[in-house]
Amino acid sequence: MTVPAEIAAIGARAEAMLAGLSVISSDPQRLTRLYLTAEHRKAADLVGSWMRVAGMTVTEDALGTVRGHWRPDLKRRLLIGSHIDTVIDAGKYDGPLGVVAGILAVRELVARGVDLPFGIDVLAFGDEEGSRFRTTLSSSAACAGIFDKAWLSVADNNGVTFADALKAYGKSPDDIAAAAYDRADVVGYIEVHIEQGPVLEARNFPLGVVTGIIGQSRMQVAVTGEAGHAGTVPMRLRRDALAGFAELMTVIESTAREQADDSMVATVGRIEAFPGATNVIPGRVQASLEVRSATDNRRHEAIRKITDAAAEIGERRGLGFDFEAAHETQTTACTPFMQDLLADAIASLGHEPFRLASGAGHDALSMAKLCPVAMLFVRCKGGISHNPAEFAAEADMGLAVSALVRFIERLAAKGAA
Amino acid sequence: MTVPAEIAAIGARAEAMLAGLSVISSDPQRLTRLYLTAEHRKAADLVGSWMRVAGMTVTEDALGTVRGHWRPDLKRRLLIGSHIDTVIDAGKYDGPLGVVAGILAVRELVARGVDLPFGIDVLAFGDEEGSRFRTTLSSSAACAGIFDKAWLSVADNNGVTFADALKAYGKSPDDIAAAAYDRADVVGYIEVHIEQGPVLEARNFPLGVVTGIIGQSRMQVAVTGEAGHAGTVPMRLRRDALAGFAELMTVIESTAREQADDSMVATVGRIEAFPGATNVIPGRVQASLEVRSATDNRRHEAIRKITDAAAEIGERRGLGFDFEAAHETQTTACTPFMQDLLADAIASLGHEPFRLASGAGHDALSMAKLCPVAMLFVRCKGGISHNPAEFAAEADMGLAVSALVRFIERLAAKGAA
Repeated sequence: MTVPAEIAAIGARAEAMLAGLSVISSDPQRLTRLYLTAEHRKAADLVGSWMRVAGMTVTEDALGTVRGHWRPDLKRRLLIGSHIDTVIDAGKYDGPLGVVAGILAVRELVARGVDLPFGIDVLAFGDEEGSRFRTTLSSSAACAGIFDKAWLSVADNNGVTFADALKAYGKSPDDIAAAAYDRADVVGYIEVHIEQGPVLEARNFPLGVVTGIIGQSRMQVAVTGEAGHAGTVPMRLRRDALAGFAELMTVIESTAREQADDSMVATVGRIEAFPGATNVIPGRVQASLEVRSATDNRRHEAIRKITDAAAEIGERRGLGFDFEAAHETQTTACTPFMQDLLADAIASLGHEPFRLASGAGHDALSMAKLCPVAMLFVRCKGGISHNPAEFAAEADMGLAVSALVRFIERLAAKGAA
Repeated sequence: MTVPAEIAAIGARAEAMLAGLSVISSDPQRLTRLYLTAEHRKAADLVGSWMRVAGMTVTEDALGTVRGHWRPDLKRRLLIGSHIDTVIDAGKYDGPLGVVAGILAVRELVARGVDLPFGIDVLAFGDEEGSRFRTTLSSSAACAGIFDKAWLSVADNNGVTFADALKAYGKSPDDIAAAAYDRADVVGYIEVHIEQGPVLEARNFPLGVVTGIIGQSRMQVAVTGEAGHAGTVPMRLRRDALAGFAELMTVIESTAREQADDSMVATVGRIEAFPGATNVIPGRVQASLEVRSATDNRRHEAIRKITDAAAEIGERRGLGFDFEAAHETQTTACTPFMQDLLADAIASLGHEPFRLASGAGHDALSMAKLCPVAMLFVRCKGGISHNPAEFAAEADMGLAVSALVRFIERLAAKGAA
């Protein structure tokens, strides 16, 4: 498929803007832009200047979120956002693409002289990655009215608290409550983001409609058997904690694989065997288990299946299995009517509106507490993210902006109907 | 089966002697007796005094091995030995039982006025565990004439070399060559030892005839896949090094289990997954693999089967498996005619002469380079060894001494025939 000149031009503009942002880093060798730093200030100023050029007025809220307002005279607002902070040694697309896409969409609407029954706020959040304070999504939480004041006392690695960093940035914690939108005024929230996974590339789709941000259950698994001499204890008489856990790992993997629609993943990322000597049968294993799924029910069913299998393996092998819940996040669905409008917008551009779940968390998680949400995923190379090798093609980014514009038009039409 | 009074008495005497040795420790809280230390000196002196009481003359060789000589006038010698050094925080049976059994067997022969066509040397080796210098079996190696001079420059944790420790103990490295027996003079070597495994206990046999000391292959296994985000990479597209190694572990275990006669064990004792984070798919695994088997052929076949399976798993999952040989020991068979004499001796005491392989190494490994060897295993509780909970029953130890005496009588009869 050849790329229309208009879409190619938008993609080229997006790439240039992202390149401009990517040189704003605390480290000349790699991209690192943490929340409420001098680099955040510079990036916010650059984003603000682009917003003005696109025809928006610009404000900043108490969290430092840059807000570009198109048609500030209208009470009802569509929110388009993503984040401009990065992980350490980041790629340039994760976050900024969603902000740039919002600005370019408004630019298109202004250029075409489109009239809408609502205004648009483009939001450039400053704290999504949690790389500085381990408080992810705090910027979008403030907009959604769910900011947790306990976060203000969290300190960074240098002992600077969130509250002190805000003040040093020229903001006041007292104004956070006022940063929350009134839900009566908000039409919805949409976020454009690179997929950060390999699914769209593998299926050869440039764009995808996100069905939801998948919930996860994290557990610590402890297996207790009996250590012994690796030479003198016959296989029949062993209570090898690692061999038993290996058997469970095959169940963990097959349980996730049984979901034909790629909607579940299960990962053992961390494992330790004790005492950990070449010639000693492991008497104990400590491992992590993480299960993510597009629906909470299926995830809980899968975990039941895994723990049932562990009980059976433990009984047969004389091992004790203990699962300790470490973290639980519910699945957040993207709003169905918003998904459908987005799918229709993609189809109108001649592409299949493929739907997929997001395995990673996004600002849309916070915003879903405030209003209907949608997410548009853009194909990225090799599924690589949080890495300088992160890459999205100009044509795909151009297409994403076009789909966003068509989504906005469809939302306006629906609102008018 | 009730225990005959004579056997009960020998067992009680053995236990008392082992208790006496067990208080000679560098640590008042636990049993630790390292080679060429003040504790070694005290233990050697105690063993020497028992030898004299039993009717032997006593010498020490250049390695500090205490040698009790019965009928020193006879040129042909039967050697009975084991070691008096211990691991750190040891039990009291591993090693000393073989020395005490030899002394008590000579005591029996003397008491009965038995005349033999050969004399007996009871050998109390000082360096079997390798707990001080990581040079195992050096004492028996000297007796067998296979002492490696390179060992003399190995240092302990305090930087003291083997050579300096020998000198401080009053010995001269120059005399090591003279410690070797002339093979023409040696009838054979027999060692009594606790099993250090659970097989005899599980089968309810007090004694066992050792068929050989099983060889082992140790390898470092490296698995290379691709790290990735645990939330965004679908199961189908993963190259999870740990999940692939878990599958291989099930093959490793089943391969060893297929040997119906308990003659093979395979152990993964050490494992590391990288990067080792809860939310990252492991891109790399490093693990140890140890396979031991009563025959070298079967062990090598098993390893071929495991590496073939790894190749298949690697192909299917897009993983690289690399096996690096770290250590290889051939299987050492106990001499068949010696095994048969020992079996006959056990049967004459009314017990089934059960045969089993030794999964651990022993001084008999060195001595097999010099002469025919036999090993008599004594049941121990729970298979526990290298641990204060190590335990052998008095009745079983008494029976072992009786079997040893009957073995000696049978060996003498055979030599006379």
